[in-house]
Amino acid sequence: MAGSAPRTGSERKTDVLAKLDARHADAWVASASSAGKAHLVPLSYAWDGERIILAIQQTSATARNITASDRARLALGGTRDVVMIDATLDAVVELERASPQLADGYAQQADWDPRSAGGGYVFVLLLPERIQAWREADEIAGRTLMRAGAWLV
Amino acid sequence: MAGSAPRTGSERKTDVLAKLDARHADAWVASASSAGKAHLVPLSYAWDGERIILAIQQTSATARNITASDRARLALGGTRDVVMIDATLDAVVELERASPQLADGYAQQADWDPRSAGGGYVFVLLLPERIQAWREADEIAGRTLMRAGAWLV
Repeated sequence: MAGSAPRTGSERKTDVLAKLDARHADAWVASASSAGKAHLVPLSYAWDGERIILAIQQTSATARNITASDRARLALGGTRDVVMIDATLDAVVELERASPQLADGYAQQADWDPRSAGGGYVFVLLLPERIQAWREADEIAGRTLMRAGAWLV
Repeated sequence: MAGSAPRTGSERKTDVLAKLDARHADAWVASASSAGKAHLVPLSYAWDGERIILAIQQTSATARNITASDRARLALGGTRDVVMIDATLDAVVELERASPQLADGYAQQADWDPRSAGGGYVFVLLLPERIQAWREADEIAGRTLMRAGAWLV
């Protein structure tokens, strides 16, 4: 991207939505325990237009942290084409209680179906609260695209 | 990597050290506030053979979190060629108190010199405590390469 001009907010939003819609992609998911210990793992995700959907082992540190703190911070993309998302917990849905729309939508986008993974998974639905996107230092200005759950662009 | 056999522990250690030694590379750095809020940012890093060196703005959430909790969790590499590092804080060193070896070593590997960045940065030195490396599901077994600060391979 060296030499290219900083993207406009509108271009960045388009790129963010493309990443949210990407098939078979992973997010870095950071969460924290109530004791203040950070956890970080790569996880497949899906996007239903409003919420980021993760399928997480119910007993994992990530599931416990997000359930306790009601929030997570996610990164999509590489370290020099970053989308940072601060999200709040919308719902935790047991697989057997998930609607076909939710479960099939996740399986289709993530290219992996937790219903065939032998149990122990839950869907964790996260609502983006703040979204930032930047590539290099010249894109730090204007990096905030969503604030308090509302797109700014 | 599809189709290749799972790497041995020794091969993984070699790959981890190559990532730690990589020039102009970024780590995903997760930290948590004492209130249990996770933070996550991409940061340039260097490796002196024992410690991961970050240069962080002193007032940033990451610096505050690591200073308060004495720990961070880092990811090197992509989501399907992962190195996960749980690290403890060894020292926070103000730029003007950093040895030339530390500051020059960081600048050389990171390809960026915080001494010319206009102030406000500190070096944060992190000691790996646990290191795990995996690519796909077939590498989950055997992923732990360092425990309690000691290489297992």
